Amino acid sequence: MQEAEIGLIGLGVMGSNLALNIAEKGHRIAVFNRTHARTEAFAASAGSLRDMVVPCASIEELAAAIQPPRPVIIMVQAGKPVDEQIALLRGVLMNGDIVIDAGNANFRDTVRRFSELEGSGLTFIGMGVSGGEEGARHGPSIMVGGTRESYARVEKILTDISAKYEGEPCAAWLGTGGAGHFVKTIHNGIEYADMQMIAEIYGILRDGLGMPAKEIGAVFSGWNRGRLNSYLIEITAEVLAADDPRTGQPMVDIILDRAGQKGTGKWSVIEAQTLGVSATAIEAAVSARILSSIKTEREAAERVYGRGGVSAFTGDREAVLADLELALLAGKIAAYAQGFAVMDAASKEFGWNLPLPTIAKIWRAGCIIRSQFLGAIADAFAGGTVSNLLMTPAFIGMMKEAHPSLRRIVARASESGLPAPALSSALAYFDLYRQGRGTSNLIQAQRDFFGAHGFERIDAAGAHHGPWGSGAG
Amino acid sequence: MQEAEIGLIGLGVMGSNLALNIAEKGHRIAVFNRTHARTEAFAASAGSLRDMVVPCASIEELAAAIQPPRPVIIMVQAGKPVDEQIALLRGVLMNGDIVIDAGNANFRDTVRRFSELEGSGLTFIGMGVSGGEEGARHGPSIMVGGTRESYARVEKILTDISAKYEGEPCAAWLGTGGAGHFVKTIHNGIEYADMQMIAEIYGILRDGLGMPAKEIGAVFSGWNRGRLNSYLIEITAEVLAADDPRTGQPMVDIILDRAGQKGTGKWSVIEAQTLGVSATAIEAAVSARILSSIKTEREAAERVYGRGGVSAFTGDREAVLADLELALLAGKIAAYAQGFAVMDAASKEFGWNLPLPTIAKIWRAGCIIRSQFLGAIADAFAGGTVSNLLMTPAFIGMMKEAHPSLRRIVARASESGLPAPALSSALAYFDLYRQGRGTSNLIQAQRDFFGAHGFERIDAAGAHHGPWGSGAG
Repeated sequence: MQEAEIGLIGLGVMGSNLALNIAEKGHRIAVFNRTHARTEAFAASAGSLRDMVVPCASIEELAAAIQPPRPVIIMVQAGKPVDEQIALLRGVLMNGDIVIDAGNANFRDTVRRFSELEGSGLTFIGMGVSGGEEGARHGPSIMVGGTRESYARVEKILTDISAKYEGEPCAAWLGTGGAGHFVKTIHNGIEYADMQMIAEIYGILRDGLGMPAKEIGAVFSGWNRGRLNSYLIEITAEVLAADDPRTGQPMVDIILDRAGQKGTGKWSVIEAQTLGVSATAIEAAVSARILSSIKTEREAAERVYGRGGVSAFTGDREAVLADLELALLAGKIAAYAQGFAVMDAASKEFGWNLPLPTIAKIWRAGCIIRSQFLGAIADAFAGGTVSNLLMTPAFIGMMKEAHPSLRRIVARASESGLPAPALSSALAYFDLYRQGRGTSNLIQAQRDFFGAHGFERIDAAGAHHGPWGSGAG
Repeated sequence: MQEAEIGLIGLGVMGSNLALNIAEKGHRIAVFNRTHARTEAFAASAGSLRDMVVPCASIEELAAAIQPPRPVIIMVQAGKPVDEQIALLRGVLMNGDIVIDAGNANFRDTVRRFSELEGSGLTFIGMGVSGGEEGARHGPSIMVGGTRESYARVEKILTDISAKYEGEPCAAWLGTGGAGHFVKTIHNGIEYADMQMIAEIYGILRDGLGMPAKEIGAVFSGWNRGRLNSYLIEITAEVLAADDPRTGQPMVDIILDRAGQKGTGKWSVIEAQTLGVSATAIEAAVSARILSSIKTEREAAERVYGRGGVSAFTGDREAVLADLELALLAGKIAAYAQGFAVMDAASKEFGWNLPLPTIAKIWRAGCIIRSQFLGAIADAFAGGTVSNLLMTPAFIGMMKEAHPSLRRIVARASESGLPAPALSSALAYFDLYRQGRGTSNLIQAQRDFFGAHGFERIDAAGAHHGPWGSGAG
């Protein structure tokens, strides 16, 4: 029997699909699952790829089946199970072998694991994989963190299995340690914001303009042929068009408005705050999911306060629709600007030297937020040092065109009582960002008044105090 | 020489003022500072309180000067210096003695220190002190976390030195471990939101209505006689009225619009996210300070994008002023609702059983956010289980009256390009909270489409999938 090039542990849906993807691209893969029946079932279902799969009954067998230096992908639940698998692998792997965590790890765990394996002879790769089940099977976006050398060992396999955007593989080495998982986390944070803004626009169409699901789907379908063209807009149109087989009603109308979340949105917000970077559109999206979960409380509050009216959205429907499209574009630009600003700050903080244009490029296909828009972002960052996406020529043009629509939509949503948390956060971010003379001079005055914190003057260097003495509080 | 009742280490402004406050209330206090000259200067400046102060040249001398069981307050910079002081104190303190950290500690450090001292014979108190320099000297609000027994030992001193609200001391034991520092953190988070919303209103008055500082000060002064009556509104009026001695210009116009921040705002946001509670108004306030710090970038962006216009705020000035007052009230209610929701969740998570009405009561005087408004909050929570401040009768009444003004102001600020991040986040929170049927059904449909996450139905229990198969992504 020929030796396998790589191993994989954990044959859940994501792991199985990733393994089939690898096998299909001509890389023999050894697979192991704690429950052996699942390994056997997987091998049996591999069909024409059966020859490229080496089912193993133990991790010893797995290790023996792979040609050294052995790369082994772990695709198990994030957290403790990953540490347990690493501990087991340390018993069977040898000098030069590579442990690859392909789950949705918190990058701080990845950093820890990376250093825990230092000196052990094994090296560690933290690999973000986006694209859901189908992406794993037919081409995900792959974000790699680890040493350059260990990446070189698996680069061929990873680029082979990754999504392609006009022929370019959507897989890249992004930096050492936790770089890959950090970038995947921010990808997901941006995804939260993107989805929430789409949901807010949907709410305005549904409750503000009174449109049924199919009509709303047609609107999104139209937008998908324009500048908003993206996977998320495409599937929004598709889910809005779908009927519930059981009731015959539009499927979305039957789905409970209570959204789940995993850790990555929350981690994005926490890391942005820790780094001191504003990521308010992502925060708003995570918070909206939090509030969605307290359905009973919301229903009780509606009984007390009534619901948002629709009056503010009557008027010229075509003009409102045009505004909504541009508002979504403007909101999206602000949210992506925040996400990339967080990555830029993390890159400096952790010394990763993250290649922002490359990140935008490998998100153009395979991942959930894939879109042509990301090509424009890659171009915008390609020119070198950029303070913020909002300050790049292409996006200045887009934002100048789109922000008046965003402010009209936020204004009308506010008046009518329809929630627009992410859109309004995006607008406030833009308005704060482009305000040369802000209002925190007042905050500095207050802080000096009650805490003698001191302030800077506009006309002289150094720290100063106001004429209010040591505080009257 | 009579023995001291208590000791204090760290004679910075806060420590000195706290020590004088303690001495003045008749409790002899032993004091120590690493730089002995400062200890001597402090003793020399104590005036008529000199007899009540025991200056010590070493911590051995400090320990010897206090009657056992010895309470020793540490008032040094948060972080490592606290751990260093604790390590030194372990060498000189004895069974039953109490180490009290009165700095702005991260409550997670407090929890750690609390357990590190367990079994050592010493006990630990984490004590939040709010009120700035003047508060420390004449009556702060004091939030205590630790064992009930150790609090009993210092209760008399702490209630004596605390602020009083109509005779009631603003000091209380709130729970074990990190409870006191957690509550202090959220106090500061609310303070951030409160100050930011005031700054946004100031910005609308300055840039939207074109009012000079003194006129704006008069507006706040008027509001301070109404329902917004509070220390922060009072000092806002005062700082707006003050002139710069150097230029004769209004002081606020000379102060640079770049606000500093310490850790507590950021910690509030991180802990809210970790607990899964929406605290968007606090987040928006922290983010606004972050953006204030990149002044040069903002100026560059204004050159590119132009600044927000003022046209939307012309019209009936009195009506706008009336709306602004109510908008600030509504925003404040939402921000406080968020802060108390975070404390409620933390109380459950950490088993503190936080007394929310007591917290509101001890914030009525002494601290930076002190106001009569907090009396209403105390009453609202006194009735027992409350899901959210927004669902208590008194606040339902206020919010029903005030939210239409908030939405008009957010709408007009959005149209005119004046940033209102915290006010718009507060509004979005309210509108999400009172929306019985939200829009996250769409998000659940998307997640099921690309990730087979499953969703709940409105008409049947359990997890379901849409008719889109296993995902087309």
